[in-house]
Amino acid sequence: MFLADVIGTVVSPVQHPFLTGRVQLLLAPLDPSGKRTGKPKIGIDHVGAGIGDRVLVIDEGNSSRQMLAAPDAPVRTVIAAIVDRIELGGREVYDHRG
Amino acid sequence: MFLADVIGTVVSPVQHPFLTGRVQLLLAPLDPSGKRTGKPKIGIDHVGAGIGDRVLVIDEGNSSRQMLAAPDAPVRTVIAAIVDRIELGGREVYDHRG
Amino acid sequence: MFLADVIGTVVSPVQHPFLTGRVQLLLAPLDPSGKRTGKPKIGIDHVGAGIGDRVLVIDEGNSSRQMLAAPDAPVRTVIAAIVDRIELGGREVYDHRG
Amino acid sequence: MFLADVIGTVVSPVQHPFLTGRVQLLLAPLDPSGKRTGKPKIGIDHVGAGIGDRVLVIDEGNSSRQMLAAPDAPVRTVIAAIVDRIELGGREVYDHRG
Amino acid sequence: MFLADVIGTVVSPVQHPFLTGRVQLLLAPLDPSGKRTGKPKIGIDHVGAGIGDRVLVIDEGNSSRQMLAAPDAPVRTVIAAIVDRIELGGREVYDHRG
Repeated sequence: MFLADVIGTVVSPVQHPFLTGRVQLLLAPLDPSGKRTGKPKIGIDHVGAGIGDRVLVIDEGNSSRQMLAAPDAPVRTVIAAIVDRIELGGREVYDHRG
Repeated sequence: MFLADVIGTVVSPVQHPFLTGRVQLLLAPLDPSGKRTGKPKIGIDHVGAGIGDRVLVIDEGNSSRQMLAAPDAPVRTVIAAIVDRIELGGREVYDHRG
Repeated sequence: MFLADVIGTVVSPVQHPFLTGRVQLLLAPLDPSGKRTGKPKIGIDHVGAGIGDRVLVIDEGNSSRQMLAAPDAPVRTVIAAIVDRIELGGREVYDHRG
Repeated sequence: MFLADVIGTVVSPVQHPFLTGRVQLLLAPLDPSGKRTGKPKIGIDHVGAGIGDRVLVIDEGNSSRQMLAAPDAPVRTVIAAIVDRIELGGREVYDHRG
Repeated sequence: MFLADVIGTVVSPVQHPFLTGRVQLLLAPLDPSGKRTGKPKIGIDHVGAGIGDRVLVIDEGNSSRQMLAAPDAPVRTVIAAIVDRIELGGREVYDHRG
């Protein structure tokens, strides 16, 4: 699992039927200081996340299928939680309630 | 899942029989700004993508086998969708319909 | 498996039910010299680790599910051990008992 | 799947029995321009590739086991095809028949 | 599979029972020139490797469980072979027998 910011959405008219009706969010993985790093991933939303949310992403097929209760789904990346607070070395570095 | 541009094709006369007749596309993964980054991957086409298309790629064995309806296929990387539009922070950054 | 330092905690009020009541720790992977490197991961604690501990992390779904004795859990990253000592080329480079 | 050049061979007298008699090739992954990049991988040959060949590598356990028809084999990286031609943006950038 | 040098050992008094009695070696992955690169991994020894050995590492759960004949083991990284010689482009670049 890793932390990411939801930075956008992706619309794909020609796609595998499983993806139809599933919100596909563009995710920016974060480094320890909260800076965006590396290539973005596309994740299926599971918790009602939106642009600007900091989220916890799981990136494994079996976990994602279990989370969506879809044992045959071709899916690997799912948003598992919306992050509320992060403490780093005892100090709060992120507070979603802002 | 990640975003990539289709940048080329690969022809392999000596190959595993499963690959025969399957279009093998050369994919350039993209960073958040849409710039190509890292090493390319080879993906099996599933949606009729071609050079110049921006696509959504799934990179996991079980998902790929499910997508191709080939439970024993030695395949890990499959193109799952052709991307039409990408919104980044509320702003449209990619429009395939150009 | 890789080495990491526990650098923080994550609190996620909106999350998959499996995560409820599980301590979610923020992990910084380490390079050979013990310097933090790359993007952090979120791991489920299994051994009572806390901030400041150097830990051994396993990052595979089936291993993690086995470790937590939860065959259907959507989880990939679990802390498998708290590291006590590391010897590098015959020289002790880390001693938790400090 | 990814592209790589076969750059060498590895000889391992002390090894898991499954590896006995299997050619172990040293593979250099390639970036989009065909330049070698990142750390090398060791792959089991499946198509008679040799040093100097550009190959298509699959890097997933279930696919590799299927390709070698060895359902219990401890193997993850197998050479699936020898590449003949690569077209990049309509231009031929590699021709093995050279 | 990838090449690595065994550079150290890890001692973890608080750990998952499966790890008890298993030698945990600190591994430095190598780039094509034999230089150490990237973050280290921790691998379970299977062939009697020690500090200074160059080894072949397999990094996949099912392969590792098969190699250790432990179908339920939470393990992903196992040392599969001790490397004796490496030829790179026809030239010997590593000879363990030194």
